[in-house]
Amino acid sequence: MSAIPAYTPPDFSRPDLAAAPAARTEPAPADGVLPQGFHATSNHPEYLHLGDGDWLLARESRMDAVMILRGREVGVMEPRLVKRGDPVVVGRSEEGEEGIYVHPAGFSSPAAATGKFAFRTRGTRETPFSRSYDELYAVLRHDRERGHIVWVLGPAVAFDKDSRDAMQFMVEHGYCHALLAGNALATHDLEAARFRTGLGQDIYTQVLQPHGHYNHLDIINEVRLHGSIPRAIRELGLSDGIIPACERQGVPYVLAGSIRDDGPLPGVISDACLAQDAMRVHARRATTVIALATQLHTIAFGNMVPGYHVTAEDVVRPVFFYVVDMTEFSTDKLANRGSLQAVAILTNAQDFMVNLWHNLR
Amino acid sequence: MSAIPAYTPPDFSRPDLAAAPAARTEPAPADGVLPQGFHATSNHPEYLHLGDGDWLLARESRMDAVMILRGREVGVMEPRLVKRGDPVVVGRSEEGEEGIYVHPAGFSSPAAATGKFAFRTRGTRETPFSRSYDELYAVLRHDRERGHIVWVLGPAVAFDKDSRDAMQFMVEHGYCHALLAGNALATHDLEAARFRTGLGQDIYTQVLQPHGHYNHLDIINEVRLHGSIPRAIRELGLSDGIIPACERQGVPYVLAGSIRDDGPLPGVISDACLAQDAMRVHARRATTVIALATQLHTIAFGNMVPGYHVTAEDVVRPVFFYVVDMTEFSTDKLANRGSLQAVAILTNAQDFMVNLWHNLR
Amino acid sequence: MSAIPAYTPPDFSRPDLAAAPAARTEPAPADGVLPQGFHATSNHPEYLHLGDGDWLLARESRMDAVMILRGREVGVMEPRLVKRGDPVVVGRSEEGEEGIYVHPAGFSSPAAATGKFAFRTRGTRETPFSRSYDELYAVLRHDRERGHIVWVLGPAVAFDKDSRDAMQFMVEHGYCHALLAGNALATHDLEAARFRTGLGQDIYTQVLQPHGHYNHLDIINEVRLHGSIPRAIRELGLSDGIIPACERQGVPYVLAGSIRDDGPLPGVISDACLAQDAMRVHARRATTVIALATQLHTIAFGNMVPGYHVTAEDVVRPVFFYVVDMTEFSTDKLANRGSLQAVAILTNAQDFMVNLWHNLR
Amino acid sequence: MSAIPAYTPPDFSRPDLAAAPAARTEPAPADGVLPQGFHATSNHPEYLHLGDGDWLLARESRMDAVMILRGREVGVMEPRLVKRGDPVVVGRSEEGEEGIYVHPAGFSSPAAATGKFAFRTRGTRETPFSRSYDELYAVLRHDRERGHIVWVLGPAVAFDKDSRDAMQFMVEHGYCHALLAGNALATHDLEAARFRTGLGQDIYTQVLQPHGHYNHLDIINEVRLHGSIPRAIRELGLSDGIIPACERQGVPYVLAGSIRDDGPLPGVISDACLAQDAMRVHARRATTVIALATQLHTIAFGNMVPGYHVTAEDVVRPVFFYVVDMTEFSTDKLANRGSLQAVAILTNAQDFMVNLWHNLR
Repeated sequence: MSAIPAYTPPDFSRPDLAAAPAARTEPAPADGVLPQGFHATSNHPEYLHLGDGDWLLARESRMDAVMILRGREVGVMEPRLVKRGDPVVVGRSEEGEEGIYVHPAGFSSPAAATGKFAFRTRGTRETPFSRSYDELYAVLRHDRERGHIVWVLGPAVAFDKDSRDAMQFMVEHGYCHALLAGNALATHDLEAARFRTGLGQDIYTQVLQPHGHYNHLDIINEVRLHGSIPRAIRELGLSDGIIPACERQGVPYVLAGSIRDDGPLPGVISDACLAQDAMRVHARRATTVIALATQLHTIAFGNMVPGYHVTAEDVVRPVFFYVVDMTEFSTDKLANRGSLQAVAILTNAQDFMVNLWHNLR
Repeated sequence: MSAIPAYTPPDFSRPDLAAAPAARTEPAPADGVLPQGFHATSNHPEYLHLGDGDWLLARESRMDAVMILRGREVGVMEPRLVKRGDPVVVGRSEEGEEGIYVHPAGFSSPAAATGKFAFRTRGTRETPFSRSYDELYAVLRHDRERGHIVWVLGPAVAFDKDSRDAMQFMVEHGYCHALLAGNALATHDLEAARFRTGLGQDIYTQVLQPHGHYNHLDIINEVRLHGSIPRAIRELGLSDGIIPACERQGVPYVLAGSIRDDGPLPGVISDACLAQDAMRVHARRATTVIALATQLHTIAFGNMVPGYHVTAEDVVRPVFFYVVDMTEFSTDKLANRGSLQAVAILTNAQDFMVNLWHNLR
Repeated sequence: MSAIPAYTPPDFSRPDLAAAPAARTEPAPADGVLPQGFHATSNHPEYLHLGDGDWLLARESRMDAVMILRGREVGVMEPRLVKRGDPVVVGRSEEGEEGIYVHPAGFSSPAAATGKFAFRTRGTRETPFSRSYDELYAVLRHDRERGHIVWVLGPAVAFDKDSRDAMQFMVEHGYCHALLAGNALATHDLEAARFRTGLGQDIYTQVLQPHGHYNHLDIINEVRLHGSIPRAIRELGLSDGIIPACERQGVPYVLAGSIRDDGPLPGVISDACLAQDAMRVHARRATTVIALATQLHTIAFGNMVPGYHVTAEDVVRPVFFYVVDMTEFSTDKLANRGSLQAVAILTNAQDFMVNLWHNLR
Repeated sequence: MSAIPAYTPPDFSRPDLAAAPAARTEPAPADGVLPQGFHATSNHPEYLHLGDGDWLLARESRMDAVMILRGREVGVMEPRLVKRGDPVVVGRSEEGEEGIYVHPAGFSSPAAATGKFAFRTRGTRETPFSRSYDELYAVLRHDRERGHIVWVLGPAVAFDKDSRDAMQFMVEHGYCHALLAGNALATHDLEAARFRTGLGQDIYTQVLQPHGHYNHLDIINEVRLHGSIPRAIRELGLSDGIIPACERQGVPYVLAGSIRDDGPLPGVISDACLAQDAMRVHARRATTVIALATQLHTIAFGNMVPGYHVTAEDVVRPVFFYVVDMTEFSTDKLANRGSLQAVAILTNAQDFMVNLWHNLR
């Protein structure tokens, strides 16, 4: 398990932690409403003191959620899912003062020594990415068998022949355990399978097809006519691309709706809360996330994915979160939401996919 | 009405148009499913030939929708709203060959003469915007009384004191007939009203407040406790900002949900299709749209807003669509979706708002 | 002097500093070549220990330069200007170990308390800028009389009528003590004075003039024919704009050449080293710098301007460095070169200029 | 020669061209000054009528230059190089009216049919690039033997191990006939050869080295001490990287100075006009240009490179100009300068280099 750094738990024998009170709860005053002073989770490992030096690590955590503590069981839950009377953990200190300990340093590596003056303290498009790629290849090879790799895709991946082929390869070769996307990715992937275009433009030659702006409307209409994506794939004989590969391989995909959608395709979850619930299922299991070329879905899923995962064997390991985008703004925005564990690779999604393809096959 | 260019209708006495057949319809085969060969609308004025030289202009049109023709009445409708048996106009030619005439040139001004070689044919951040601003001021003064001004806002407008004050001014002085936004804009506007912060950062001093990352969760929780935004505003005594001003002035606002949302606030429409329906109500009436600092909502509403509006007095006028964004990518993306009438102003939303404020008060 | 924060010098009575050795020099082995182990300056205040507790602050410093110490005089100099035998300070430690003390914290304000988890730790286009503007207005009002305000301009400022008028106002009203730019800014400013265009596009109406791509070549040719910029201004009767205002007000301007230049105009310094020398004259005196819409000149001047200035009255004050640009990349790049004192305002140069104009007149 | 499209010359038997007058010249009034009404070249093929139906194609042309016509010889020259009395072609019409014919359509392929409404008419980061890459591979394989491939490089290429290795491969395997860059590319390439860092950051591990901000100053100083780049490479035993490969292979490189430079290294041409002259030598011979991650050098060289090249065998072929950059702004800017023939690939320079490496070896 060399690709995966070891975890150092907190030292609860530290005097201040040994003397910490037990964590406290208050009942939720109404469905979807929290008691005053509720504790909101971060994406770091968080421990609750049950008393007598007994600290409990929250599993399947996420950012901006609350903890429901019942006996020795703690659940991490979105506030809107809390029911009246649920025992919600309260307290906003992080060093055990109220029985809550937040532990950001579990996976830290020793930082380089720096003086009062240093260059290149921020990641930009000019940061060297060779090692980030090499680490990613190692992580993907590891997690293919012993993890849960989740891809979060914007439609750009389907607009180019090579990157679409590359993503199909990931699905077919075990590098994708779940796919999260929107109506557009599925629509343009199926448009390409049917017409070889994305929004009417040939995905290889770049030529705009005559009446090509009808293509995505036509494929949506055909899928609606057939009643579902799997049925349309079968009955229209669509074989290449990302969504057909998911269907063949039994890789689950969640298509979350948005107000930008045409159609939508059958199977798209148009209610944002229900879509979040469907995405959270994969956030609970994710060990590696690759988010490409979609700010909306990246930030949405980034909010749901904690920085750590507790395996079935009770091993605590990091969750790797790779964000591939063209602008520093997108990655800064993720950092500004607290998701500091994310590794940004600033490049075009097409080249990123082709790079992975070359190196994993 | 000098700020508003005149409209030149097509010349239907042209021989090929005079000889055009009448437009044809086919019944929809199922709810939300279109007949083969359906005609999809653009955002240009489109006319249907009813026979005998009688051409009918579609009102309240939009891009990527279909036309339901019943007698002398044509309705433009999203495909998902079509009912089984509805008479859907079919035909994909645009020059009358199938009784459909698309008219992009109704508001054209004479283009500048250019040779085989020219500089600066594309709009960028270096395009001079003085005139775009001056025209916008004239349009807003006109449409304040005789139009329907719709604002589409990203949360950035609420993150800065001056731009938030400026937007409050627009609402209070008749320059905003409807507001479209997401959960985040409303949350951070109310966060500012309650705590003077946006995501925990003081909207004036830029100082990060201790525990400030709780502020938006606390305001969401408080509004949920009070049951609705208007009740929370009243009972918490929130007075400054954009949403409180809308409530006081009776300006309607649509908050469309997304998978990125915390909460959401009560009143946010979490179903994307229902949110589209609520937004379309304003798209049908819009005469000027100002879309700031939100790619998702800008493209969503850009897809719904036609390039023209037919007034109650049957005058055809353009719909002005201003997109304010920091990157050429966003505006190129809108152009690539066919929304060529959009005027891009490449700048920070904060400065844009402050500019308008200075010039309209 | 309320707009200007006070300076806290180091505490040289600290035992480790009291015990520090005197700074050491080595002779330069050749012209423009440094001795091994040379000390390179940062943009922070740096002190040299002369022995016996006597510490000397370097004046007129800059980044990546060296110190020549002769008796009680220290000069900060670009390496290429060092002469064989010059006594160059050596040593790379910063805490007095080798008699050199680097003092980054002289102007620090108390930072906000933050926990283990915080939002919005990075500046982006969504950072609130109201206060940055207000502080800038106060600084400009102060430094107009009691400082040296240097503007570093990209050509975009001359491409728009309002921003060009605004810059002319700055020059005419004492808010600009020196102007640094390239051939393009001067060319397009004079093009606008002569033809009302920038690269052939009308600076107000945005209309491309027929044969407009000749305009900048024609103005360059005319100025070359007249022999100099001042003569051409006089003889062609050019009156509006930035460069004519500098000439009228006697505001010095440095035009640094680059390989991108057409022409160049007479007066442009085509040798990069000579241009750096001419710019450094203003870097030595600068108390406030405003750098707009030019990455090349901003980084070049950012490398030359220290974070502090010692006034004629021996008061140490900060040098304010405002960078106005559209992308986080440019400001990250400056930060990655060590210029952390720079305040970034992410917006369009046109709006920035118009904002200043509104608030300073 | 299948990778290279054929050229269709103008039809000079067209009546208006057959009746065209001969081109006219006026003597230059002074050194570096043009006669009124001078003709400025574009980057398209341009023909001069010598009379009697005899049209002469300008060779080794460039944008914004002038034509000196002596008998049957035409030279294209930067205005600053014109000498008093030189016969400068005058006339600004392009259709033969004054004996000048501009021919932009010589290499045109039939455009796709489009209707009144189309998607995706602009290139962005979402344009599919698979085919652009495949065409580039074919062009490079062709021009390796039968062309002149010029690379224009920003420093980012040297900041990453893999992309630096890839560029070394290009030099060593005949895919680079000339290299144009600035002081920074050479400095950081040699810094990497000596210290394995770029601006102090390890080019593979991303770790910031202690005192790493000295590394580029130290290598500059060492090269200055050794007197020249080739001597420093030899005496310091630097073997890997781009510049050492150029030295070994005898590939010429031009290092153009700028005001942003530290040092500069010996061999850097600090005078912008002399640097332009050295670059123009390669512009005259270039058949394919690849410009990566440098706006300054890309635009500078883009201004110098015509859209066509006349081979020794008098065959007219296109010059391919690939611009690799992260933002639409850079490529729009090139387009706005008239360089419409440039093919933009919007991605990170590192991935671009790695892609080429994978496909050319």
